[in-house]
Amino acid sequence: MKKLIVCALACGASTLALAQSNVTIFGFVDATVGHYNVAGVQSVTKMVSGGNQASRLGFRGTEDLGGGLAAGFWIEGQFATDTGAGSGSNTNNTASGNGTGQSGFSFNRRSTVSLFTPAGELRLGRDYNPTVWQNVWWDPFLASGVASATNLAFAGTSGAGVNAMRNSNSIGYVYNSSVYVDNRVGLYGQAQYAMGEGTSGTATASDGDVVAALVGYRYGAFNGSIAYSKTKLASVRDYTQTNAGGAWDLGVVKLYGEYGIANSGMPGTRYSSYMIGAKIPLGSGYIPVALQTVSQNNAADSKANQYAIGYVYNFSIKTAIYASYARIANKSGMGLTVGNGSGLPGSPNATSSGTEIGLRTTF
Amino acid sequence: MKKLIVCALACGASTLALAQSNVTIFGFVDATVGHYNVAGVQSVTKMVSGGNQASRLGFRGTEDLGGGLAAGFWIEGQFATDTGAGSGSNTNNTASGNGTGQSGFSFNRRSTVSLFTPAGELRLGRDYNPTVWQNVWWDPFLASGVASATNLAFAGTSGAGVNAMRNSNSIGYVYNSSVYVDNRVGLYGQAQYAMGEGTSGTATASDGDVVAALVGYRYGAFNGSIAYSKTKLASVRDYTQTNAGGAWDLGVVKLYGEYGIANSGMPGTRYSSYMIGAKIPLGSGYIPVALQTVSQNNAADSKANQYAIGYVYNFSIKTAIYASYARIANKSGMGLTVGNGSGLPGSPNATSSGTEIGLRTTF
Amino acid sequence: MKKLIVCALACGASTLALAQSNVTIFGFVDATVGHYNVAGVQSVTKMVSGGNQASRLGFRGTEDLGGGLAAGFWIEGQFATDTGAGSGSNTNNTASGNGTGQSGFSFNRRSTVSLFTPAGELRLGRDYNPTVWQNVWWDPFLASGVASATNLAFAGTSGAGVNAMRNSNSIGYVYNSSVYVDNRVGLYGQAQYAMGEGTSGTATASDGDVVAALVGYRYGAFNGSIAYSKTKLASVRDYTQTNAGGAWDLGVVKLYGEYGIANSGMPGTRYSSYMIGAKIPLGSGYIPVALQTVSQNNAADSKANQYAIGYVYNFSIKTAIYASYARIANKSGMGLTVGNGSGLPGSPNATSSGTEIGLRTTF
Repeated sequence: MKKLIVCALACGASTLALAQSNVTIFGFVDATVGHYNVAGVQSVTKMVSGGNQASRLGFRGTEDLGGGLAAGFWIEGQFATDTGAGSGSNTNNTASGNGTGQSGFSFNRRSTVSLFTPAGELRLGRDYNPTVWQNVWWDPFLASGVASATNLAFAGTSGAGVNAMRNSNSIGYVYNSSVYVDNRVGLYGQAQYAMGEGTSGTATASDGDVVAALVGYRYGAFNGSIAYSKTKLASVRDYTQTNAGGAWDLGVVKLYGEYGIANSGMPGTRYSSYMIGAKIPLGSGYIPVALQTVSQNNAADSKANQYAIGYVYNFSIKTAIYASYARIANKSGMGLTVGNGSGLPGSPNATSSGTEIGLRTTF
Repeated sequence: MKKLIVCALACGASTLALAQSNVTIFGFVDATVGHYNVAGVQSVTKMVSGGNQASRLGFRGTEDLGGGLAAGFWIEGQFATDTGAGSGSNTNNTASGNGTGQSGFSFNRRSTVSLFTPAGELRLGRDYNPTVWQNVWWDPFLASGVASATNLAFAGTSGAGVNAMRNSNSIGYVYNSSVYVDNRVGLYGQAQYAMGEGTSGTATASDGDVVAALVGYRYGAFNGSIAYSKTKLASVRDYTQTNAGGAWDLGVVKLYGEYGIANSGMPGTRYSSYMIGAKIPLGSGYIPVALQTVSQNNAADSKANQYAIGYVYNFSIKTAIYASYARIANKSGMGLTVGNGSGLPGSPNATSSGTEIGLRTTF
Repeated sequence: MKKLIVCALACGASTLALAQSNVTIFGFVDATVGHYNVAGVQSVTKMVSGGNQASRLGFRGTEDLGGGLAAGFWIEGQFATDTGAGSGSNTNNTASGNGTGQSGFSFNRRSTVSLFTPAGELRLGRDYNPTVWQNVWWDPFLASGVASATNLAFAGTSGAGVNAMRNSNSIGYVYNSSVYVDNRVGLYGQAQYAMGEGTSGTATASDGDVVAALVGYRYGAFNGSIAYSKTKLASVRDYTQTNAGGAWDLGVVKLYGEYGIANSGMPGTRYSSYMIGAKIPLGSGYIPVALQTVSQNNAADSKANQYAIGYVYNFSIKTAIYASYARIANKSGMGLTVGNGSGLPGSPNATSSGTEIGLRTTF
C-alpha cells in the first residue's frame, strides 16, 4: 500500500509537471484614492480600484499542437482592490442578464477557449466586444480611471440597457491575434457573433444577439483600427457602436485620436464623440492628455466636453504611481460624470470633475 | 531599513519556493455551441459550457510526510466558459441549501483536505457523492454535454429536492485513491458520511445526512464499480441511489455498461436505468456511442430511451474538438430532455434532441 | 502566418516567464468536525472550516524596484472547506455594506497593493484592522476554531454593527512589515486610515471611517504589541477597540497574555477582556491552553469566562491534526458561545461548550 501512495504522489508530481507547463497567472492590482465632484450637487472622497488599469486575476495558456496549430485558454476576472470583491458577469448581453450576487469573483472579463490555425484564431466564450478596443487602445488613459474616454464614449449605454464592453456566448474569428496591440504587425482583425439565447418564438428571441467586427493595421509607428457592433434589443431597436481610432508614435510624443458613434436606434439617442490625445514621455514616465467631446442628436443638442491630464511614473515595467485629473463640462441637458468608480450620479448641466492618485502593480 | 526590505523580499522569495512546491493549478476550458429541441414545444441555439468536460479551475497538491503518510488538498470550482460565471455550492445536501448569488466562483466541485496513510486516505470537506462516479466513469460521454448519461440517470432528482452529485460536510475514507480511475490497479473504494447539519430536535434534524460507499476493481483491461448512497430527506422519505458499471477495453473498441436505481422512497418515484455504450477508436480520436433506457415505477409505467453518438478528435492529450448528438424518446408521460446546459423545459411524451459542437482544452 | 502564431506562442511564453516570476500561490485547507452545545438549549454536530487556521487561497508577490524600493501585492480570500463556498466582503466598514451573494469567492481577507520604501510600506486596499492582530498573534489558538480568543474579545461587535476584523478602502503605513510576526525584529507598527465612503452632507457621511494604529516590539524571545482603532458609527457613537498583548518564549513553554477593550460608546456597551495562555511543546506538537474573562459595564455587570485546551500535532511544518475543547461560563445575563463556525445562537447565562477535531494543511 505504501507503494500505491508513493505512486499517487508520483502521479501527482507528473501531473504537476504536465499541468503547470502551460499556465500563466497574471493580473493587476491597482488602488486609487479619488476625490470626485458634481458641482453644486455632491462630492465624495473614496478609494476606488483601477485608476490606471482595472484590478484583475487571470489564468491563461497556450499549447503547441504541431502543424501550425495551437490551443489556448484565457480566463480573467475583475476585482476591486478597495474591497476585495469580485464582479458579476452577464448571461445574455442585455441588462436583464446582469449577475446578481456581484460580490463574488467570476471570470467576467474574459473566459475563452481558442484554436489557433495558420488562418487565424477561433475563439469561443465570453470575450470583449470588438468595439471596446478602440476606447482602450487609442485612449492615453487606457479607458481606466477618472479620465477614461468611456466617460463620454459610453454615453447612453445605461439608458439603452446594454453591456457595451463584453459579450457572453461569443464565437469569434481573430486574425493576427496577440496579447498586446503594440505587438501586432500589419493587418489584424476580429469578427464576432454572440448569442443572446432568447427563447425562440418570443418577442425577445433575438435580444442580446450581437454581430461585430474589427479591422486594424499597424505599420511602423502607426497603429489604427475601426470596428462596428450591433446588439439586438427589441425594446430600443438595436444598439450599435461604430468607432475608429489610432495612435502614432513620434518618439517625442505619441498622438492619439478616436471617433465613435453609439446609437440606440431611438430618436435622439445617437451619441457622437471625438477625442484627441497624447502621451508625452517625461522622465521615467509620461503625461497623458486628452480632449474629448460628445454630442447627442436630441432636440436640445446636448453636449459635453472632457479635459483630462495626468502623470504616470513607472518604477518598472510592472509598477507605477499615477495621478489624473479630469473635468467634464455638460451643456444643454447632458449630465455625464468623470470616473467609473465614483458612483456619483450625474446632474444635467453640472460640471463634473475628479482627481485620482494611485499605485498599480502587475504580475 | 534597506536591509529589512531586502529581508522581506528574500523572505517572500523563500516563501515562494516553499509555497509553490506542492501546488498544481489545473482545469478545463470547454465551450460548445448547441442546438436543442423539444419537439413541438421549443428550440434554442446557444453556447453552453462543458460539452466534453465541465469547465473548471482548481488547485491541488500533496506533501510527503514520511513514514508512508502524505497530506493533500484539492479545491476545484466550476465556471461557465460562455459567461465566465461561477457556480454556487450547497450547505446541507438538500435543495434548501442551494447557494444564492450563484454567479460567483466557488470551490463547488470539490474542497477537501486529506491525510494519506498506508491503510487509505482520510478525506474531509465537500466531495463527490460516490454514486456519481458510476455515471461519469462508465459513460462514454463522461457525464458531460448533450448526451450525458445523467439525462436519464438523474431522472427525478429535481423533484426529490436533492443534489445527487456532491456532498458538503463529508468525512470520507478512500482506499487506493488516484486522480484517474484508469490509473487504479486492483481493489479500490470509498466510504463516505456527510452531515446535513440540521438543527437537533427538529423534524428536519437529519435532512441532508448522507451515507454512501463505493467498491471497484480494475484487472487489466477491465474496470468496474458499484456504489450506494442514501440522503435523508424527511419530506420524501430518503433518497437513495444504487448503481454499478464498468468498462472493458478490447483495443478495437472499449465497451461500457451501467445500471442504476434512483429512488425517492415515495410511491412511483423509483427510476431504473440501463446503459450500454462504446468508445470506438478512429484516427486521432474516438466515436462515443450509447443506448440508454429509464423506466419509472409509476402507474403509467413512464419510460424514456436515449440514443447518443459523437466524435472526439484529439489534437493532443489536452485539446480536442468534438461533436455530439443525442435524442430522447419519452413515453407514457415521461418528459426528459437532452443536455444539461440547454435549459429547455421538458414536456411529457415530447421527443427531445440536441446537437453540440465544441472545443475543449486542459491545463 | 505560421510565423505569427509561433510569435504569439513565444510572446505567451515570455509573458509567462515574466508573469510567473513574482507570484506566490498560498493557502490553507482546514476541515474540522465539531460538536457544539449551549446547555439546556441546543446542540449540533457539524463540519466547519478552519478549526486551526481559516481556509483560504491567495496570490501575492513582490518586485524589487531598485534604490531600496519594492512593489508588492496581496490578494487573499476565505473559503469554507466544508462546502467550498467563498465569503463576501464589505464595502463600507459597517453592517450595511456586508456582501450579499456570499457564496462566491472574493478576496475578502486582504486585497492590497504596496510600495515598500526604506522608510516603510505604503499599503492600499482592503486590509486587516490593526487591532485584530492582538487577538491573532497573542492567542495560543490563533483566533481560530472553537477556542478562539475572539469568542470573548469580539463580544458586542454584532450588536454594534461593525466589522471588527478588516477594513475596506484603507490607506496604511506599515513599519518593518513581514509576513510573520515572529520574523520581525525590533520596533514595528502600522497606521491606518480607512474610508466608509458615505455620501457627503448626510447624517451617515462619516460612518465606517476608521483610524487605527499599532505599535509592536520584538526583543529576542519577547514580542508584544498595542493597538487602537476607532470606527465612526453615528448610530452608536463610535466603535473603538483598544488592545495589547504579547508572547514570551521560554523554550519549555511559550506564555501569552492579552488585554482588550471593545466599546460601542453607548452606556453599558464596553467589554473588557483579559486572557492568559500558553503553548506547551509536546512531542511533534504543542498543547495550547487559555483562560479568558470578559466583563460588560452594564448594570447587571455581565461576565463570561472561557477555558480552552487543545493539542496540535504537526506532521510537518505545513500539515497538522488538532483537537480543541472550549467552554464558556456566562453570568449575569451574558450569552456568548464558543466556536465561530457553530452557528448556535447564544442564550443568557447558558454554558456553551464545544469540541473540535480537524486536519489542516498549507500550501
